[in-house]
Amino acid sequence: MTNRNYAIVGTGALGGFYGARLQKAGLEVNFLLRTDYDRVKKHGLTIESPEGDFTLPQVRAYRDADKMPQCDVVILALKTTQNHLLPKLLPTLLKDNGVVLVLQNGLNAEPQIAQIVGAERVIGGLCFLCSYKVSPGHICHIDYGTITLGEYAQDYKAIGITDRLRQIAEDFQLAEIPIEMSEDLLLSRWKKLVWNIPYNGLSVILNARTDELMANPDTLILVEEIMAEVIAAAKSCDRIIPDNFIPNMLEYTHKMKPYRTSMKIDYDESRPLEVEAIFGNPIRVAQKAGVKLPQIEVLYRMLKFVDVQRQEAERKRRLLDLL
Amino acid sequence: MTNRNYAIVGTGALGGFYGARLQKAGLEVNFLLRTDYDRVKKHGLTIESPEGDFTLPQVRAYRDADKMPQCDVVILALKTTQNHLLPKLLPTLLKDNGVVLVLQNGLNAEPQIAQIVGAERVIGGLCFLCSYKVSPGHICHIDYGTITLGEYAQDYKAIGITDRLRQIAEDFQLAEIPIEMSEDLLLSRWKKLVWNIPYNGLSVILNARTDELMANPDTLILVEEIMAEVIAAAKSCDRIIPDNFIPNMLEYTHKMKPYRTSMKIDYDESRPLEVEAIFGNPIRVAQKAGVKLPQIEVLYRMLKFVDVQRQEAERKRRLLDLL
Repeated sequence: MTNRNYAIVGTGALGGFYGARLQKAGLEVNFLLRTDYDRVKKHGLTIESPEGDFTLPQVRAYRDADKMPQCDVVILALKTTQNHLLPKLLPTLLKDNGVVLVLQNGLNAEPQIAQIVGAERVIGGLCFLCSYKVSPGHICHIDYGTITLGEYAQDYKAIGITDRLRQIAEDFQLAEIPIEMSEDLLLSRWKKLVWNIPYNGLSVILNARTDELMANPDTLILVEEIMAEVIAAAKSCDRIIPDNFIPNMLEYTHKMKPYRTSMKIDYDESRPLEVEAIFGNPIRVAQKAGVKLPQIEVLYRMLKFVDVQRQEAERKRRLLDLL
Repeated sequence: MTNRNYAIVGTGALGGFYGARLQKAGLEVNFLLRTDYDRVKKHGLTIESPEGDFTLPQVRAYRDADKMPQCDVVILALKTTQNHLLPKLLPTLLKDNGVVLVLQNGLNAEPQIAQIVGAERVIGGLCFLCSYKVSPGHICHIDYGTITLGEYAQDYKAIGITDRLRQIAEDFQLAEIPIEMSEDLLLSRWKKLVWNIPYNGLSVILNARTDELMANPDTLILVEEIMAEVIAAAKSCDRIIPDNFIPNMLEYTHKMKPYRTSMKIDYDESRPLEVEAIFGNPIRVAQKAGVKLPQIEVLYRMLKFVDVQRQEAERKRRLLDLL
């Protein structure tokens, strides 16, 4: 049995699910919460899942990072739109030889975290998880759940699989969370973007589920062309994704149940969209290498437009609620 | 006074407005109608306009093209989505030495009409008109109204300004419709597309008026980039639009009153969108010349997606109405 202790920063549909699984497996997990603190402190966490429902009546819930014990592994499960909070949070939460496991979407979260805690204390993770928060402390796991773990080093240099990566992987496997280990975190991030960029973007702009985007011949062509742009962008970082990756992704998506993407869920719930992490950062990285992504740029700018419009409407709604 | 007689094919917000103005000026105008026939036959046409309201209690209204007199000038004011009707209609309506004046949006309507009536019997026109149909036979003119007239010859070869073009221009000027004459119809069509492609496309996809697209920094950049693609496409047809055309168009749009584009009005009223005329044809013309328009293609495919979705919903709504 491990004696590593964990912190969950962002106890939502993702952080809440993985944290609860780790605690259920006997690990010490400390949950940082804000709006859901009272409910979770009182009633713990409930997970519904096709792999078995369970409730943890008591969890180590904290509202204040200063009062939390320092941890060996800080799991960062906040949306990237909250990353301005991290320079204050992370140093407080992390043991001297601890690591931050970045379970965030898109590109370039790791270098940002590395600036706060040092590159040697950053590990990346890509979640293939379909879950949502029913209510505070109540999470519904729908499907999938695998995490791809990868070491981070300055500029995403691939440094292979380390002992500490294996140890963390063991903790997750103990919690029955399927783990893959990547020798090249940046390649893994680009591969995930091949899916995330077209489907997240088009689902929001066209108000559509994955099955609708796949059934229409025009959006199907758009998906393919945008995937090809992501592969070209990856190549600009010397990461080679083989051409047959596109038909494989399409096949995989065809077989999925009709799926509302995570960005569409954020949009429908009037939450800020992770536009910079998933679209802006890849565009800027490719641009630095002299590669233009004209079609992804259209999605990016459209998403920024609808994000601003939606946040503006949300702000007005809240003001009215206050009156 | 002229003795040319006119036919209006498509007595909507555009054809109804110009036809009524021509009749008011004393010209013989024959209106072809379908759904609005009964109302217009009985009560004529009413035009509201900042330039003066007027009613024509009696107009030459026809439901059946076969019963209409043949005309010197057949004004084609149907939406391009109705062009499948033309091979039957136009030969019936046109005098032997008559001409079709194509007042349609986008690119490549003229060559299509030329295949039916011969290139020598086709003239093109670009309308800068802001009007809408309030109800059958009742049209509200909001702003603008200038028509740019240009001769058509095979493959849009520029043949300058002809006598018959001047004569038609005189009829319109008699009707107080401002006329410009173009020596190069294709150049004029591309110039209009510099405005129509970004604003029509983005207004539908982002559910936005022109002022909203101009006020947001991201959509403003998109508008500029898409305009540059249109200018590149025009160049592929050997039509040179100077670079300062873009800032001029932006300035012009900034000064406009908040404007709902014609495609947005079509979309809001669940009418089929003129996607092929305004987007598909320019893309194919440029592609033939080896020029790709990646950002316009995104708009094109998105519009086809929303058009299909909307028409499908409309079809279901009508079926339910029948039950």
